[in-house]
Amino acid sequence: MIKCLVLHGPNLNLLGTREPEVYGKTTFDDLNRSIKETASRLGMEVRIIQSNSEGQLIDAIHDAMTWAQGIVINPGAYTHYSYAIRDAIAAARLPAIEVHVSNVHARDEWRRHSVVAPVVVGQIVGLGPRGYLMAIEAMKNLIEESHR
Amino acid sequence: MIKCLVLHGPNLNLLGTREPEVYGKTTFDDLNRSIKETASRLGMEVRIIQSNSEGQLIDAIHDAMTWAQGIVINPGAYTHYSYAIRDAIAAARLPAIEVHVSNVHARDEWRRHSVVAPVVVGQIVGLGPRGYLMAIEAMKNLIEESHR
Amino acid sequence: MIKCLVLHGPNLNLLGTREPEVYGKTTFDDLNRSIKETASRLGMEVRIIQSNSEGQLIDAIHDAMTWAQGIVINPGAYTHYSYAIRDAIAAARLPAIEVHVSNVHARDEWRRHSVVAPVVVGQIVGLGPRGYLMAIEAMKNLIEESHR
Amino acid sequence: MIKCLVLHGPNLNLLGTREPEVYGKTTFDDLNRSIKETASRLGMEVRIIQSNSEGQLIDAIHDAMTWAQGIVINPGAYTHYSYAIRDAIAAARLPAIEVHVSNVHARDEWRRHSVVAPVVVGQIVGLGPRGYLMAIEAMKNLIEESHR
Amino acid sequence: MIKCLVLHGPNLNLLGTREPEVYGKTTFDDLNRSIKETASRLGMEVRIIQSNSEGQLIDAIHDAMTWAQGIVINPGAYTHYSYAIRDAIAAARLPAIEVHVSNVHARDEWRRHSVVAPVVVGQIVGLGPRGYLMAIEAMKNLIEESHR
Amino acid sequence: MIKCLVLHGPNLNLLGTREPEVYGKTTFDDLNRSIKETASRLGMEVRIIQSNSEGQLIDAIHDAMTWAQGIVINPGAYTHYSYAIRDAIAAARLPAIEVHVSNVHARDEWRRHSVVAPVVVGQIVGLGPRGYLMAIEAMKNLIEESHR
Amino acid sequence: MIKCLVLHGPNLNLLGTREPEVYGKTTFDDLNRSIKETASRLGMEVRIIQSNSEGQLIDAIHDAMTWAQGIVINPGAYTHYSYAIRDAIAAARLPAIEVHVSNVHARDEWRRHSVVAPVVVGQIVGLGPRGYLMAIEAMKNLIEESHR
Amino acid sequence: MIKCLVLHGPNLNLLGTREPEVYGKTTFDDLNRSIKETASRLGMEVRIIQSNSEGQLIDAIHDAMTWAQGIVINPGAYTHYSYAIRDAIAAARLPAIEVHVSNVHARDEWRRHSVVAPVVVGQIVGLGPRGYLMAIEAMKNLIEESHR
Amino acid sequence: MIKCLVLHGPNLNLLGTREPEVYGKTTFDDLNRSIKETASRLGMEVRIIQSNSEGQLIDAIHDAMTWAQGIVINPGAYTHYSYAIRDAIAAARLPAIEVHVSNVHARDEWRRHSVVAPVVVGQIVGLGPRGYLMAIEAMKNLIEESHR
Amino acid sequence: MIKCLVLHGPNLNLLGTREPEVYGKTTFDDLNRSIKETASRLGMEVRIIQSNSEGQLIDAIHDAMTWAQGIVINPGAYTHYSYAIRDAIAAARLPAIEVHVSNVHARDEWRRHSVVAPVVVGQIVGLGPRGYLMAIEAMKNLIEESHR
Amino acid sequence: MIKCLVLHGPNLNLLGTREPEVYGKTTFDDLNRSIKETASRLGMEVRIIQSNSEGQLIDAIHDAMTWAQGIVINPGAYTHYSYAIRDAIAAARLPAIEVHVSNVHARDEWRRHSVVAPVVVGQIVGLGPRGYLMAIEAMKNLIEESHR
Amino acid sequence: MIKCLVLHGPNLNLLGTREPEVYGKTTFDDLNRSIKETASRLGMEVRIIQSNSEGQLIDAIHDAMTWAQGIVINPGAYTHYSYAIRDAIAAARLPAIEVHVSNVHARDEWRRHSVVAPVVVGQIVGLGPRGYLMAIEAMKNLIEESHR
Repeated sequence: MIKCLVLHGPNLNLLGTREPEVYGKTTFDDLNRSIKETASRLGMEVRIIQSNSEGQLIDAIHDAMTWAQGIVINPGAYTHYSYAIRDAIAAARLPAIEVHVSNVHARDEWRRHSVVAPVVVGQIVGLGPRGYLMAIEAMKNLIEESHR
Repeated sequence: MIKCLVLHGPNLNLLGTREPEVYGKTTFDDLNRSIKETASRLGMEVRIIQSNSEGQLIDAIHDAMTWAQGIVINPGAYTHYSYAIRDAIAAARLPAIEVHVSNVHARDEWRRHSVVAPVVVGQIVGLGPRGYLMAIEAMKNLIEESHR
Repeated sequence: MIKCLVLHGPNLNLLGTREPEVYGKTTFDDLNRSIKETASRLGMEVRIIQSNSEGQLIDAIHDAMTWAQGIVINPGAYTHYSYAIRDAIAAARLPAIEVHVSNVHARDEWRRHSVVAPVVVGQIVGLGPRGYLMAIEAMKNLIEESHR
Repeated sequence: MIKCLVLHGPNLNLLGTREPEVYGKTTFDDLNRSIKETASRLGMEVRIIQSNSEGQLIDAIHDAMTWAQGIVINPGAYTHYSYAIRDAIAAARLPAIEVHVSNVHARDEWRRHSVVAPVVVGQIVGLGPRGYLMAIEAMKNLIEESHR
Repeated sequence: MIKCLVLHGPNLNLLGTREPEVYGKTTFDDLNRSIKETASRLGMEVRIIQSNSEGQLIDAIHDAMTWAQGIVINPGAYTHYSYAIRDAIAAARLPAIEVHVSNVHARDEWRRHSVVAPVVVGQIVGLGPRGYLMAIEAMKNLIEESHR
Repeated sequence: MIKCLVLHGPNLNLLGTREPEVYGKTTFDDLNRSIKETASRLGMEVRIIQSNSEGQLIDAIHDAMTWAQGIVINPGAYTHYSYAIRDAIAAARLPAIEVHVSNVHARDEWRRHSVVAPVVVGQIVGLGPRGYLMAIEAMKNLIEESHR
Repeated sequence: MIKCLVLHGPNLNLLGTREPEVYGKTTFDDLNRSIKETASRLGMEVRIIQSNSEGQLIDAIHDAMTWAQGIVINPGAYTHYSYAIRDAIAAARLPAIEVHVSNVHARDEWRRHSVVAPVVVGQIVGLGPRGYLMAIEAMKNLIEESHR
Repeated sequence: MIKCLVLHGPNLNLLGTREPEVYGKTTFDDLNRSIKETASRLGMEVRIIQSNSEGQLIDAIHDAMTWAQGIVINPGAYTHYSYAIRDAIAAARLPAIEVHVSNVHARDEWRRHSVVAPVVVGQIVGLGPRGYLMAIEAMKNLIEESHR
Repeated sequence: MIKCLVLHGPNLNLLGTREPEVYGKTTFDDLNRSIKETASRLGMEVRIIQSNSEGQLIDAIHDAMTWAQGIVINPGAYTHYSYAIRDAIAAARLPAIEVHVSNVHARDEWRRHSVVAPVVVGQIVGLGPRGYLMAIEAMKNLIEESHR
Repeated sequence: MIKCLVLHGPNLNLLGTREPEVYGKTTFDDLNRSIKETASRLGMEVRIIQSNSEGQLIDAIHDAMTWAQGIVINPGAYTHYSYAIRDAIAAARLPAIEVHVSNVHARDEWRRHSVVAPVVVGQIVGLGPRGYLMAIEAMKNLIEESHR
Repeated sequence: MIKCLVLHGPNLNLLGTREPEVYGKTTFDDLNRSIKETASRLGMEVRIIQSNSEGQLIDAIHDAMTWAQGIVINPGAYTHYSYAIRDAIAAARLPAIEVHVSNVHARDEWRRHSVVAPVVVGQIVGLGPRGYLMAIEAMKNLIEESHR
Repeated sequence: MIKCLVLHGPNLNLLGTREPEVYGKTTFDDLNRSIKETASRLGMEVRIIQSNSEGQLIDAIHDAMTWAQGIVINPGAYTHYSYAIRDAIAAARLPAIEVHVSNVHARDEWRRHSVVAPVVVGQIVGLGPRGYLMAIEAMKNLIEESHR
């Protein structure tokens, strides 16, 4: 069974209440429920972690090395400066897919730059909470293909 | 029936032969066949156009205003400087999803910047030819939701 | 009789339908009709060409060397990066006036920079479709003065 | 009767004597005479003020709020750094047209940037003293249209 | 009764011992006592939190959404790069005032830039520990005015 | 009796009429009346000067050396480029507090940079006309403390 | 027999008439005749294509993959921004030599940067029309050596 | 007895497993054992702390003020942006030596910049795990010299 | 008799009292007396003007066109941004020498850039009040040589 | 008989041994022998000088003014910063051709910029040791043409 | 016996007399004596060369290829711009360690950038003359390990 | 007797023959003769050294520490990048005056920046060969004053 870590960065726990005109009305709990359902439908196991702390996010990535085969990550605002998370992903040597709920390219200039992007496999941006579900499915395909 | 333009920019006709270590071995014809199949499976109509000419890509976007409800576009190298394609997408007022086969963030610095990104709905990057198929399905969802 | 090329760059064919809150409600056909009338009133001959293709715009400038005495040009988004159009204008050695319908300085930062501006005689910016009519009249005066 | 302030910034009083190879041979008095004649022909009232002082130019803009419906301004070198004049124009809430006698884009790099441009309606650049006359006529049209 | 969170970022616990020639001799405990007294005098309730951890500061901001009406924050060095704290403040939708004890503009160049400043109501900089007291009083006025 | 110069830079005379959605509805006269009242309440003497002229602002700072013990200054748009005002403040060797009515960090990028900030004691930004009153009180405290 | 594509970018068709003080008096026809003669003397076959259209230049490069062993290219102004031509050359996997008639380093700053240069074998700059002849001969040597 | 804190930043716990072609094969436990042995040989006491959390690293630095005379620190990726750690080191007023296992100057451009470097005594870069041992010995010499 | 304008910019009236550790103890009156004596010794006539107002400095330059043959100018802080003074000097077509009392290159970075320098004959920097005397003598030589 | 200086900059003496995967296997002696042979075949006289010293390279350029009619120069790494060599070439007023063995545009970013390029006639880059031979022949043609 | 070149760049001969508050009081002779002693103690042979000439430093590096197994280098101010020395080190293919006596990161901004750093094994910075001794010992270890 | 080193950098030996439209017609020998005469008239001893070698210029500065009391230096093109010469001047602790014959601010942008300027007493720029004579006299005054 394919196992995947889903990692939510800072402020994502507020999803649905935070600037709904930007991030939509789906709540954080709704989102996680959908993620679980999708994983279940695909025969995958996911563990979902949210933290506002850079260090805890890194800890979770390190820990994933012991049990997961891939990481779906939305690093929130850490996307733009956390070289420490970047190094953690690179060190973990697990395939990772970066997700952003809103189109970061249509907002502040600094939101366009991701220090994490060069070490992930790919990105899904601006497609709302559905982006996570697409990422989980893409991760399954990636892992299965690499096993062939 | 949902209708969607799939637009391939310069050099994408070489897919499968061009730098396969970067872009993979799927040929351009294989890719288009998969796109057609996916569309068919989803009950959508797609028209696929490839051109190396910036002007013809703009013409195709203008033309789509008369028949399509969405655009899936991989602007190739024009991604990085064609403000004219950007303006065409903005003028067309159709939802657009930007696709890149390889992870543009893990290559040359200039490949990281997309002048098109601020006017599309979202981006799917680095997930290979599958990115197109994901984009078509996401487009279907986007259009159906906006009709509710 | 003074002869003048009026050259419209990419997306200008959508004038009146494209972002009317920015570009106004005058349609492209209305505009061209006004241009013809103004030229006629001033005793000038104008030929009007629109293209989304950088190459065709350059071809038209080259061709103007054989019949026109001046060029009124709105290079659209090519304004900001087409050094090829710039070189064509410089090579043609015909006086040129650059027109922009909207005030490019009050929008995106990148719209403020024109690579064409250093090789034209002058610019008329932000005065709507009337800017073209003013440019045609100014061109007439320029040419007549240079003949004195 | 439409009333318009014509504001000349620093060094424009030297027009005709200053670098005539750049600015032409029309003297400052000639120019103002033409402006008066054009205004008179168009049934407008203009008041013409020249000052080398940034503060006096701002005072004149403030004063125009009490009597004028529009401003034609050549801020001279203040164009490139006077955020105070920019703020004055924005605060006055009168339509303004920016005029430059020479093509500022074909000279020093720093002359290309106008801090005033984002708050005016439009610009007329490089068309010589005639630019002022075109601006006055355009201002008349702008004001009449906004009254419709 | 108006309730306000007072949030101290990294290293502020060392106030009074750390570089007293820059930050003054008032200790952290002195400061917090003055804050309490001022709040008490103004009939406000304050809770004071200090943390060196970016994540805990964000947690505290999230928590404030459940009990406070405003935030007085000195983000310490996080001021200059923590887009995550910025997003937390924006998401909380509580009025915030940014305080800096020393004049950050008279020191290292990088201290001049605050990523938090665009999402707060205002800033009080360089006025020593008193800046906190001024901020608390200003916060009271802000909240009372918004209730009228 | 503590004496303090209150200096208003360009366009501040329009307060209350100029962009009230940004600067609020308090008029310039209202503001000055409040300043006088606050000073009176604190047992201070203030003289209030407004000028649109950089030179006159500098003259006023020089003059303050002969009668005042502190300066509260809102340099308006000169904040962003007047190294001459900066040098005047530094030369006067009087403590100065910089005030901005609106949050300059939440508007145009260029408004974020103050050339004056490195030579003042501190800044109060974004807290509306009240910022002046806070500055006057802070100035009183500063001067009294330095006399101890 | 070694076969080589000679590709002329925008405005090169005007050679000899365009700014002869920069580009010399050799006409485009003269140049092509010399190229043919040199190729003939060296026992090579050349096909010469000129286009003002970026798309057609890319088409020609793609086409060369089917018949040529090398490319001599003067991309004209596209040199400075056409990442699409760059990608075409890289994709074609044919050795290419970049030629510029004038010394691009002694003119405008922007002419110094070539986006094409990193994917060609080498450059010949500033040596006039002769540069093409040198490039053809160098191409012959390159190809012959790679066959050893 | 000289006491020294040895502080490892994020991801260093993976040493030996993480990108061994860059960081070598010495494991984190090996390294710490060598550090202990070296300290012991030099008659020093060391305490070794590793954390992925910026806040905990700062806490450890603050705590060192109560027991240590020096700090050997490898801030990992925080090196490049943690102004908070920089301020902690500066506030602690303990001599610090910065260590990097790999040659940060031979890798990504952003790895070359250390925000911590200006407040430490010196740096040892690229000399592998041995760099820590050299730093401990240098620290001993530094402290002994400052006591003379 | 050679006539020369000596122009002092903002804050120079404070010479001798302003930051004497930077600008020395010679007062403004002392300096002007020395300038007069030197001029007298050299058989020259000088008129000395000081103003804090950019506009008045420009007026003085314009006026000098009617009576002087050269200008010695210390533009004070206007050196760094007054393109208006630069244009006035260029328009006046009188030889000018720029003087700075202190070594502007050994202070703040922004003091190193002079927008005036490209239009003057030369500069004398950092040699104290004596720099003015040297400039007057150099001006005499310049004018006499140009008359030969 | 045409006489030409061939000047090799720093580290070129190591040709053939230094990074042969970049610079090829031709040794420095082989290269110079080929240069001599080519010159001899063309009826030219060449003198070849190599130095690692910037000063000696300048001396050689000065000396060439007394005997040579042209210079072929590979300034090695001095290409990128030696304004002194640039000034020497400009001062010598001899035609110069700049040669680089490898394609400097396909390596480090800083290798792309040549401070010498604006004062030479042209450049031959990336064509290996053959570039020198091409340069010598081009120099012969240049000199003969200028004598016509 | 391991042989190592110790190379001192410009101005290092003044060590002990030059800015002792920055570089310490150890004289150049003292330093070299310590280096010799350390080498002797470690059973190594060192040759020490100092030169103010970039060319001679390069010559010494080339020469070291014939006798040494490693280089300890303090390139002095050449550190910041000598791409020629960088290329010499890279060409020599000997391991090199870069030493700086003072903490270059705590001084002028330009001292922070080393063009040499990417081609050396590592750096020892800010640890005074002892840095050389540490470098020699580290070099011994490096060479011995590479021989295993 | 006051002793002064006069140091000429690269290419100054060509004075009078090199670009006389920029540098004038005074030859290098004429200049040195004038320098000697001026020194003699002032009762000073000067030694004049010219070198194209950065290293020799540094050697001369070091040597001056043993016999001279001041340095007049025109570093030629080394002005713009020789941090080594800058460090030599700073280390020598002799007052230095920087001279440039032409107005470096009216030519190429890169000529405006002097890395030497922050460590000299002052600069004399653009006043031709006379600048040297003025510098020598100013040096005499400087030294005499410092002895009082």
